[in-house]
Formats: sequence, C-alpha cells, structure tokens
Amino acid sequence: MVEGWVTGDEISKWEQRFRAALINSITGFKPVNLIGTKDASSGHNLAIMSSVVHLGASPPLVGLVIRPDSVDRHSLRNIRAHGCYTINHVTESFYSKAHQTAARYEDSVSEFDAVGLSPELIEGFEAPFVAESPVKLGMTLVEEVPIKHNGTHFIIGRIDHVFIDAGLVGEQGDLDLAGAGVIALSGLDRYFSVNFLGKLPYAKP
Amino acid sequence: MVEGWVTGDEISKWEQRFRAALINSITGFKPVNLIGTKDASSGHNLAIMSSVVHLGASPPLVGLVIRPDSVDRHSLRNIRAHGCYTINHVTESFYSKAHQTAARYEDSVSEFDAVGLSPELIEGFEAPFVAESPVKLGMTLVEEVPIKHNGTHFIIGRIDHVFIDAGLVGEQGDLDLAGAGVIALSGLDRYFSVNFLGKLPYAKP
Repeated sequence: MVEGWVTGDEISKWEQRFRAALINSITGFKPVNLIGTKDASSGHNLAIMSSVVHLGASPPLVGLVIRPDSVDRHSLRNIRAHGCYTINHVTESFYSKAHQTAARYEDSVSEFDAVGLSPELIEGFEAPFVAESPVKLGMTLVEEVPIKHNGTHFIIGRIDHVFIDAGLVGEQGDLDLAGAGVIALSGLDRYFSVNFLGKLPYAKP
Repeated sequence: MVEGWVTGDEISKWEQRFRAALINSITGFKPVNLIGTKDASSGHNLAIMSSVVHLGASPPLVGLVIRPDSVDRHSLRNIRAHGCYTINHVTESFYSKAHQTAARYEDSVSEFDAVGLSPELIEGFEAPFVAESPVKLGMTLVEEVPIKHNGTHFIIGRIDHVFIDAGLVGEQGDLDLAGAGVIALSGLDRYFSVNFLGKLPYAKP
C-alpha cells in the first residue's frame, strides 16, 4: 500500500506497471486529444495523447510531449515529414473509440478506419481532423525540442486553423468545453466528465 | 461571435483579453497545481499554475511551463536559486484560496499567509509543501529549457518526494484524485469537479 511520504528511491523500486499507472496519474487531470497526421503508408494516422500544454496566446503556441514508443513514433515521423498535425478534442460520445487508437496497428492501417472515426480535410492543410470533434486545431510545427533525460520530444506548434462548434464561445472568450461534452483523463485509462464549480474573478492583492 | 473555421490571421486580430481567454481554454481541461518555492524575501512563495505535464515514469519526470510575467517569475527565480520546488494538488475545498495566489503580492508577502494556506516542510528539502493538499510532489530541478518563440521556460523536474493521503492508491497503481476532491481547470478561471465515466482496457488491434 502506498500512502504518506515516499522517496524517489522507493518509487524506483515499484513494479513497472504499478509505477507507470501511478506516476501517469500523479500530475493531475489531463486533457484528452486525438493527434491527426498525414501518413505515407495508411494515408491518415490518429493517436490519443494527454500531453498537450498551453504555451502562450500571442502567438498562439501549444506544446505536445511525444514519447519514443512505437505508437507515438508514427505521429512524430509524420509531423517531421509534413510539418503539421491536428489536435482534436474527445467527447463522452466517442471516448472509447479514441482510446482504441492507442493499439499498435500495422503501418498500412489508418486508425480512423480501425476505430470508426471520420477524417475531415480542409483546403491548404495536409493533416486530417476528426469530423466528430467539437473543437479542432490545425497546427504548424515550429520547433522540436529533444528531452535528453528520457528520450521524449517536446513539440512546439502554432495554431493556424481552429474549428469550434456553434454556441461554445462566450462574450469574454470562455470556451464551453463541458457543454460540448469534452472530457478529462486521469492516468492512462480512466476517463471523467466534468461539473462546473465556479468562475473566479481576476485575483488582486 | 466565433464559430466554425477560423484562421490564424483572424485569431491574431482578436481583442487581447478575448484571445487570452479563448486560447487558454482551447487545449482542453488542465490540472490545477500550487507551485511552492523557498523565497529569500518572504520565506515561502506559492503560485497557482496549470501547465504541469507528465514526461515519463522511469525516471519520474514532470514538465512545467513558466511564463515570463511577474507572478510566475518569482517562482522561476526561486527554482533557479534553490534547485527545487513542490507541486501540490488543489481540491474543491480550497480552490478559491489557490486562485488568489495569482495576485501580484509584494516580494515580502508569502502567498501562504496572504490566502490562508499552511506551509509544510520536510527534512532535507528546502521548498514548502501545501499542508492542505492530498497529493504533493517534491521536485528537483533537472533542466530548464528556454522556449525562444515566446520567452516562456520549460522546467524539467524529477520527483524525489511524494505525499499521498491514505486510501487513494489502488492495487494497480490508480490514484483516486476524484475521491480526494482534486479538481480541473478550463482557461484562466473556470474550475470543475469530475465524474468517473469509465476505465478502459489496454488497447489491442
């Protein structure tokens, strides 16, 4: 049983799957996104990720951590080859399909076909969006930062296209992700819907 | 009104506060963390952030984006000076206090005192934890990566201490953040509790 204070030495002795589950949970709730890329073999690649992070609003920059394992590596190869990718939000209505994109399909298989989601293309942009998603971002690769300590890659991208379903953006720029059915993830495999608690005013001393 | 497809050129023309609110919301739900640091002037600094991202489980590495504005800069200065910081989860019971740490207090003021949270110290670690938090991480700075495109900083840290309240970790390493009352954030100021939807099996083709 793990509770109370634990040291890094103890963490390193945890069984591998237990440690992966717990450390993947320990940073808090995560966004759930499908990353779409153009793929030379299957046409369209799609992979679920939970490592998107806001970098700045002006210019609109987004970070994405990509791991070196085989599933994510297809996405990384395609982002490098074409310089673009899409970030698509996952809703309660199709999260089990989104989760299934994590399976290690053969190169010739498009995850869109395998899990039953629809690729959507727009003029002048090579990477596929997810038609079912209420909020979609078309990203241009700006820089790839190698994280030497564990072989992951920090992908910095600029938002060049946005799709937002009607009625989701308020007058102050608030985006109603909850109203769109967008969900959150904990760890590797536990999905959560959300309840609005409150909007707090700009903090002053 | 913003809906349907929008280009990057149009985004750049949005009014500044509207753009900040919408782009801060557009990556999905975010974790809510209080970053604790040792401060030469006030003793203990505390700042709310929503840019923590999992980097890997072995070694246990966590990324943190720190912006160049004045509030976050205190945290960055202290992390550089002492090489350590804490990541503390925020629950429904004290999220308004956590939000208030974003105010621009004078250097001599500890946010712990200003908002009414309790610093907790452990032997051999300089940065303060938040006593009220059910899950706390003691981080050692590994590397600071400058993001040249917008002047932010990507802080890579190793988890060297963990505190987890009793009863939160399951046999498979699942961490019950929802049971602990941990919440999520959308945008800059909208807080959400979560509802468990389901745990999905490891995906296979």
